Amino acid sequence: MTSVVACFGEVLLRFAASDGATLRDTTKLDVHVGGAEANVAVALANLGIATRMISALPDNPLGTLALKTLRREGVDTAYLATGKGRMGTYFLTPAAGSRGGEVLYDREGSVFSSGDAVSPTALHGATHLHVSGISLAVSSTASATTRALTKEAKQRGLTLSFDGNYRPSLWQATGRDGRDEIAEMVDMADLFFGNYKDASLLLGREFSGENGSRMREAALALLNEFSSLKAVSSTARHIENGTTHRISARIDSRNASAESEERSLTGIIDRIGTGDAFAAGVLANWLEDPEDLQSAVDSGLALSAMKHY
Amino acid sequence: MTSVVACFGEVLLRFAASDGATLRDTTKLDVHVGGAEANVAVALANLGIATRMISALPDNPLGTLALKTLRREGVDTAYLATGKGRMGTYFLTPAAGSRGGEVLYDREGSVFSSGDAVSPTALHGATHLHVSGISLAVSSTASATTRALTKEAKQRGLTLSFDGNYRPSLWQATGRDGRDEIAEMVDMADLFFGNYKDASLLLGREFSGENGSRMREAALALLNEFSSLKAVSSTARHIENGTTHRISARIDSRNASAESEERSLTGIIDRIGTGDAFAAGVLANWLEDPEDLQSAVDSGLALSAMKHY
Amino acid sequence: MTSVVACFGEVLLRFAASDGATLRDTTKLDVHVGGAEANVAVALANLGIATRMISALPDNPLGTLALKTLRREGVDTAYLATGKGRMGTYFLTPAAGSRGGEVLYDREGSVFSSGDAVSPTALHGATHLHVSGISLAVSSTASATTRALTKEAKQRGLTLSFDGNYRPSLWQATGRDGRDEIAEMVDMADLFFGNYKDASLLLGREFSGENGSRMREAALALLNEFSSLKAVSSTARHIENGTTHRISARIDSRNASAESEERSLTGIIDRIGTGDAFAAGVLANWLEDPEDLQSAVDSGLALSAMKHY
Amino acid sequence: MTSVVACFGEVLLRFAASDGATLRDTTKLDVHVGGAEANVAVALANLGIATRMISALPDNPLGTLALKTLRREGVDTAYLATGKGRMGTYFLTPAAGSRGGEVLYDREGSVFSSGDAVSPTALHGATHLHVSGISLAVSSTASATTRALTKEAKQRGLTLSFDGNYRPSLWQATGRDGRDEIAEMVDMADLFFGNYKDASLLLGREFSGENGSRMREAALALLNEFSSLKAVSSTARHIENGTTHRISARIDSRNASAESEERSLTGIIDRIGTGDAFAAGVLANWLEDPEDLQSAVDSGLALSAMKHY
Amino acid sequence: MTSVVACFGEVLLRFAASDGATLRDTTKLDVHVGGAEANVAVALANLGIATRMISALPDNPLGTLALKTLRREGVDTAYLATGKGRMGTYFLTPAAGSRGGEVLYDREGSVFSSGDAVSPTALHGATHLHVSGISLAVSSTASATTRALTKEAKQRGLTLSFDGNYRPSLWQATGRDGRDEIAEMVDMADLFFGNYKDASLLLGREFSGENGSRMREAALALLNEFSSLKAVSSTARHIENGTTHRISARIDSRNASAESEERSLTGIIDRIGTGDAFAAGVLANWLEDPEDLQSAVDSGLALSAMKHY
Amino acid sequence: MTSVVACFGEVLLRFAASDGATLRDTTKLDVHVGGAEANVAVALANLGIATRMISALPDNPLGTLALKTLRREGVDTAYLATGKGRMGTYFLTPAAGSRGGEVLYDREGSVFSSGDAVSPTALHGATHLHVSGISLAVSSTASATTRALTKEAKQRGLTLSFDGNYRPSLWQATGRDGRDEIAEMVDMADLFFGNYKDASLLLGREFSGENGSRMREAALALLNEFSSLKAVSSTARHIENGTTHRISARIDSRNASAESEERSLTGIIDRIGTGDAFAAGVLANWLEDPEDLQSAVDSGLALSAMKHY
Ligand SMILES: Nc1ncnc2c1ncn2[C@@H]1O[C@H](COP(=O)(O)OP(=O)(O)O)[C@@H](O)[C@H]1O
Ligand SMILES: Nc1ncnc2c1ncn2[C@@H]1O[C@H](COP(=O)(O)OP(=O)(O)O)[C@@H](O)[C@H]1O
Ligand SMILES: Nc1ncnc2c1ncn2[C@@H]1O[C@H](COP(=O)(O)OP(=O)(O)O)[C@@H](O)[C@H]1O
Ligand SMILES: Nc1ncnc2c1ncn2[C@@H]1O[C@H](COP(=O)(O)OP(=O)(O)O)[C@@H](O)[C@H]1O
Ligand SMILES: Nc1ncnc2c1ncn2[C@@H]1O[C@H](COP(=O)(O)OP(=O)(O)O)[C@@H](O)[C@H]1O
Ligand SMILES: Nc1ncnc2c1ncn2[C@@H]1O[C@H](COP(=O)(O)OP(=O)(O)O)[C@@H](O)[C@H]1O
Repeated sequence: MTSVVACFGEVLLRFAASDGATLRDTTKLDVHVGGAEANVAVALANLGIATRMISALPDNPLGTLALKTLRREGVDTAYLATGKGRMGTYFLTPAAGSRGGEVLYDREGSVFSSGDAVSPTALHGATHLHVSGISLAVSSTASATTRALTKEAKQRGLTLSFDGNYRPSLWQATGRDGRDEIAEMVDMADLFFGNYKDASLLLGREFSGENGSRMREAALALLNEFSSLKAVSSTARHIENGTTHRISARIDSRNASAESEERSLTGIIDRIGTGDAFAAGVLANWLEDPEDLQSAVDSGLALSAMKHY
Repeated sequence: MTSVVACFGEVLLRFAASDGATLRDTTKLDVHVGGAEANVAVALANLGIATRMISALPDNPLGTLALKTLRREGVDTAYLATGKGRMGTYFLTPAAGSRGGEVLYDREGSVFSSGDAVSPTALHGATHLHVSGISLAVSSTASATTRALTKEAKQRGLTLSFDGNYRPSLWQATGRDGRDEIAEMVDMADLFFGNYKDASLLLGREFSGENGSRMREAALALLNEFSSLKAVSSTARHIENGTTHRISARIDSRNASAESEERSLTGIIDRIGTGDAFAAGVLANWLEDPEDLQSAVDSGLALSAMKHY
Repeated sequence: MTSVVACFGEVLLRFAASDGATLRDTTKLDVHVGGAEANVAVALANLGIATRMISALPDNPLGTLALKTLRREGVDTAYLATGKGRMGTYFLTPAAGSRGGEVLYDREGSVFSSGDAVSPTALHGATHLHVSGISLAVSSTASATTRALTKEAKQRGLTLSFDGNYRPSLWQATGRDGRDEIAEMVDMADLFFGNYKDASLLLGREFSGENGSRMREAALALLNEFSSLKAVSSTARHIENGTTHRISARIDSRNASAESEERSLTGIIDRIGTGDAFAAGVLANWLEDPEDLQSAVDSGLALSAMKHY
Repeated sequence: MTSVVACFGEVLLRFAASDGATLRDTTKLDVHVGGAEANVAVALANLGIATRMISALPDNPLGTLALKTLRREGVDTAYLATGKGRMGTYFLTPAAGSRGGEVLYDREGSVFSSGDAVSPTALHGATHLHVSGISLAVSSTASATTRALTKEAKQRGLTLSFDGNYRPSLWQATGRDGRDEIAEMVDMADLFFGNYKDASLLLGREFSGENGSRMREAALALLNEFSSLKAVSSTARHIENGTTHRISARIDSRNASAESEERSLTGIIDRIGTGDAFAAGVLANWLEDPEDLQSAVDSGLALSAMKHY
Repeated sequence: MTSVVACFGEVLLRFAASDGATLRDTTKLDVHVGGAEANVAVALANLGIATRMISALPDNPLGTLALKTLRREGVDTAYLATGKGRMGTYFLTPAAGSRGGEVLYDREGSVFSSGDAVSPTALHGATHLHVSGISLAVSSTASATTRALTKEAKQRGLTLSFDGNYRPSLWQATGRDGRDEIAEMVDMADLFFGNYKDASLLLGREFSGENGSRMREAALALLNEFSSLKAVSSTARHIENGTTHRISARIDSRNASAESEERSLTGIIDRIGTGDAFAAGVLANWLEDPEDLQSAVDSGLALSAMKHY
Repeated sequence: MTSVVACFGEVLLRFAASDGATLRDTTKLDVHVGGAEANVAVALANLGIATRMISALPDNPLGTLALKTLRREGVDTAYLATGKGRMGTYFLTPAAGSRGGEVLYDREGSVFSSGDAVSPTALHGATHLHVSGISLAVSSTASATTRALTKEAKQRGLTLSFDGNYRPSLWQATGRDGRDEIAEMVDMADLFFGNYKDASLLLGREFSGENGSRMREAALALLNEFSSLKAVSSTARHIENGTTHRISARIDSRNASAESEERSLTGIIDRIGTGDAFAAGVLANWLEDPEDLQSAVDSGLALSAMKHY
């Protein structure tokens, strides 16, 4: 059966200071579309997989700009609702050499976080749903919508991937640590993007990312706890300096595991969205053959590596 | 006595689609600072008048960007408070030839409209306060702050200018027509920027802008009603087509009036902020010599004309 | 029945000298998508009409660039074939003030003109086909493909619009005047975009565009000669100077006609694609209500006017 | 005999505020080459006439930039000397709509005005020399060099054109009105670009530019006074407003005269260098046929008109 | 005797995606002039050597753009013919960090490859001719013209340098491996730019680039086979990663050889044209003193290194 | 007591070739403000320290541009005088990869070097003065003004920091080595930015920068010679290649010293102003606590490191 993937989450506009300036001093902004799940949708569509975005946008020029950009990339935009509220945005000073980047989220009151109704046919014809933990943390309405949609997906027989995408700052703002909602999602997922830190949070005891066998330990503990889960995948990053990183990745199922070779990346420009590219690469392969773990993790890392430039 | 002017109102960042694109299709935004009262402050500072801005900004890179831009223009930024909330912004498709411009305000939840406390020393050392009707319409807290600050100004003996700046869309969103608040402000003002339409609203009967004597009629009715008012000034615009306008201006006191010659402007690029430039030009002259109405209105129109390019 | 429009023709990439430079001196080119029929497709999609493009592109980065740009605008790109040959392009020095523009076509050997196979399902589900005379002149294979596709459309019961788009230079290069092929197309069309000059060519006698009644004369002669034809529409342009034009438009059926008011456009930037915008505006209305000629011609002229900026 | 024209004068770099900004606020400058005589040289080379530039540049990156730009346009740069001093420059806020432009010359201490030696072979092989009054006003060394070179040209049998290019601000700075030096040059010239104001200065009595016959009067008085002079040519400009001008031109010999039709130019961007373009157009034609005054004046005006955009 | 070098080959326009975008997504292209032999001509002219380009360009704005750019760099453009056909172009996604670049040639039907006549005086006054293997592979007419011109050069007593510039893709398109044409050229050359791979192709047995002595072996075999050959020169590149390379170079004559030190280049931006810069550096020195091999190879490598940024 | 720092020196405009071009080939320049002491002022203001600039600017658009840019950064511009002369400028080809940068100073005849009067109240209210050796070398008037102002500062009880900033090329142009003037300044300073080379010049014997103890030796010799001096600070730079440097820093007082850890910087873009950033970081800390040498040197190095990007 050919996959039809639905990605659910907030679509953000990204406004980045141009020409090496910082936000404090810039006279121009470069406009791009972002948002973790939208990034995954774009990457999947570029890989030739039929992909739709489920989200809500304002009925104004910025909402149209976001929609047109997704459409340009081949994402099916027919399931984007319009609703009341603002366009979710973020402002960025890109990293430059050893100078770190700076992100300013400006998404309060966005259509998505106001939880405007999802189209009732949003999942019709889809075979897989991809969701991330960011939607749980953004607002309580968004969290409720996310969980309801995921349940509907399970009932309709879709497979599910869930990217933890743990953002401490977002969760702090809610006053909770998100453990219960995240667990509820992982419990429904077939494929979970998360590492030993997520395992520590979810299972309430410390795991370590020190080496391959400790990481498998954490993955197995998750697979043990959550019975529908088929696989757990994550990346590890060693930062030598601002522009040189070493990255590697792994995926674990109950009875097998695959590790990529470590890749050294020099002259890195920007790491935004590299986690999303990884998820897309793994997911695209996993949908085609869930047994071929090695291809999944290699594709994921290759896509992620490309995204650093 | 040398004037020290305080302008109170919301500082906005203006993000305009560059290179002739529309917001729906742009890949770059040009960043400027706007907001009616901030425009007046910049224009006054450029005329060499000591001018401060009283407002509140977020403590983030966008707030800093706004502050630095005002400071560049010579506006005293020492009285800008920081507070909770977003940076107020607006997005713009600039007009081009016969194609009209399009403005999208994105200022909900801004620090200013949340009414964060004004510095208690904000008026110390100032001799004049300039305020506009936009601050009354933006939110009820902003309206309360505006009126309180204006009262304090009166008590401290400052003179006051008030620009009606009537924005139907803003007032509609409040469910009121603003008549009472505006009247409260005009009642305290020395100089009012408003035309026959404002007179109609405030006095509850129809006035006309048909010709000079009808406009003087409206001004005199206002001067009659509001006893501290010294002068009323306004512009009139005849739009021949998208890029060619004819503009003129007048000012009326109880026993005198001055009219400018009509100016024909061709190849107009952008009329945003032209009303603010007019107010600044009139105000600067009026502060120096409140009797010389002709200079006031001529300077105002000259500044306004320049702002169309 | 909801319309599904198919536009057939060559998709071109347009490379325009930026920042006011000429092609001879430029260091940057601005990239856009053009081609008369693709312009119509984009305009129709922007009006909310389901529109597909039937054409052939090279399987290389430039072909992908063209496809993604059409997709961004909401044009259905599922019926674009890939084939051997180059991407069709044109280079442009935009007009500036009284300085005229300059166009350099560079489309020899393009996939489209090499006549690569049209997808056999290209017309499935479509209700209307739009074609232009440019495709007849571009190459003999393109001409053959155009006529074959049009015949198939008629057999399938689609309605047909045909824009003469007479380009003397293109026809001169073929050594023919195109009369026979054009007549063959008009004979199948329901709606023909052409004026008194096209009538002169097709009917072999002189018509005049001097005034409304002479223009109706030419239209009636065409409606007389071509029995399936329902309506004939055209624009007239009076050039006052490089940046000021007056434009008007008309449409004629056998027993009715509608004329727009003349519009004066000042500060014109660029007239490329204004004829295509007109065709799209007329067509969109005609598809909805073929009797309402006035709306058709007014919409067409409004869209065309906007395109000058 | 085929003409080989030598232009003598200062080559300037022109730094203009970009993107509509003023010099006071710009973050980018656009770089071009200017200088009245260099403008003439570029225009002549573009008309296909063998043209060399005689001047002196600093041996630094800015000097090289100026040389390469002239070379790009086909001007022979083999006779450019290098010398001590700075590159002559000027900074520009371009005009925009009704806002006038602003020029800031920054040429003190330039190589040219320091009078560094002209190559002894500078005139070898040349048939015509073009000079302007600016070189007389720039510095006393420059003035001396100009007159010496012109004398050498006369001795070598070259024809001479002289553009008065009267710049009040430059002459004021010298404390003289330039009458004597200018007269010395006109006395050697075959073709003089100057109008009734130049006649007034040179002949010490008032002439008028009111209409054609008064202008011929002034020209004849000059032809009377200066016996080697063959023709006098000038333009007249009527400024309707910032972006709309009407221009016309005339040329007078002793027994004939030619006037162009008046041209109306709308949407004017920039009038810098339009006088130089006129001189080049007239000169190119005059060199080919000194009797055909009408062609000369028409070509001059056409080139000048184009330069306004 | 002062050298006058003629470079023969196709002049290409290079259109590169700007601002870090790929060709598939770009909205702007940066325009440069390229083509292997034109790159050599520009580099030689910048070194102060009298250099002309022999090639053919279309008589249209793109041809003019190419000509003006070469002229700017000081290349003598008087021997560029005009002919029928297109301008040869290539499109480029520049490399960025670990992401490789992508080149799309679009040169079919170009004036050069159509073999339009070379000016009969093209070699008059020249002392040296530089040619590359690309011209042999581009089309059979180009190949014939190349060989004819080279023979004429030999007859006129010019020295000859030949850069193999082996492009597998170009040769594959011809269905031949080029061995015979290349051999014919090397047989006439004084200086050959080629390495052990070229030796393998030309001599029909395997050579190795493993170390200095194996490379000298290959060079000596070539010098042995081709009796007029005086020297063979080549570079070797060790790619550590996308932005860090180590490069070295050597030159061999029958009885001497010189090797450069290996240079490590970090933060490499672009390697296009680095081989051409090497050839120019070696050639410039060789023309002055064919015995000083060390200077030749050091200059070549220095120029090549600079070209990576 | 809260510090109020006055920086004295020439404000320069910096015009840098944009988009990777060299000055010889650029069509655009990026405009920034520079000058060693102005760089220090901007850095101090950004650290929140009340900072004024004492200098002289021309009363023209370029002077205004410089003033507005300093004001934007929060530097107090009330003590900038206007005077006769040009704006001091420099032109820059930025470094790129292994290609070194190139600077062209164009400051002759500048207002500052012409020594126009310093405002008599320039030091009123200031607690500290920062000066550099560049002002001594620029012109004899500038040198005299510098020393006079410094003496006045001592008399008023201000503390003094002096950055040697030894520029061989500037001193060579004066025909002196500057030893006496520099010594005069160091003799008045509390904090001296200089290394073992400065010690060698000032004390007339050789010192070495080989390792920490040799560097302390040089610093102690200076502290010994100049009795009011409290501390000496310097950086050391090890250049691995164009884009990778290792930098470290130290500060010595009579009875203590502090060294930073060495930092490795990769992907360096530009080292202009990095010495000024270091001085600002050290000075800011030293003003707050002159005993805490470690914080001073660490802050200085951190700021300097950031400035490389
Ligand atoms: N707080 C947030 N809210 C919403 N989206 C976020 C947030 N933080 C990051 N993202 C999105 O997540 C995407 C992935 O971020 P990335 O830096 O690759 O993280 P990681 O590798 O840790 O998953 C980014 O493109 C951004 O759009
Ligand atoms: N709804 C609004 N809220 C806040 N500021 C506004 C609003 N509408 C306009 N402005 C500001 O008012 C300024 C003046 O607008 P302008 O077009 O000159 O109007 P007018 O001539 O009618 O006064 C603009 O620069 C903009 O920043
Ligand atoms: N020779 C041609 N071949 C292909 N397309 C063309 C040609 N000439 C013009 N076009 C296309 O036709 C479109 C319409 O041109 P336009 O200037 O509006 O003409 P008109 O108003 O006469 O129909 C342009 O966008 C261009 O892409
Ligand atoms: N003071 C000056 N010094 C040197 N060149 C000047 C000066 N003023 C103008 N120019 C040059 O003269 C050229 C012609 O100026 P333009 O505005 O066309 O004047 P006009 O039409 O009066 O001759 C400009 O390109 C500029 O380079
Ligand atoms: N197929 C080709 N046809 C024509 N020119 C080519 C081709 N491939 C490369 N070039 C030209 O050759 C030049 C040299 O390429 P370069 O990457 O330095 O190769 P190398 O080091 O292998 O010689 C480039 O500037 C490009 O213009
Ligand atoms: N000759 C000079 N005249 C004036 N200022 C100079 C000169 N050379 C450098 N500068 C200024 O000094 C500042 C510091 O230069 P930098 O490269 O950091 O040197 P260092 O680290 O040796 O102190 C630069 O921003 C520049 O503006």
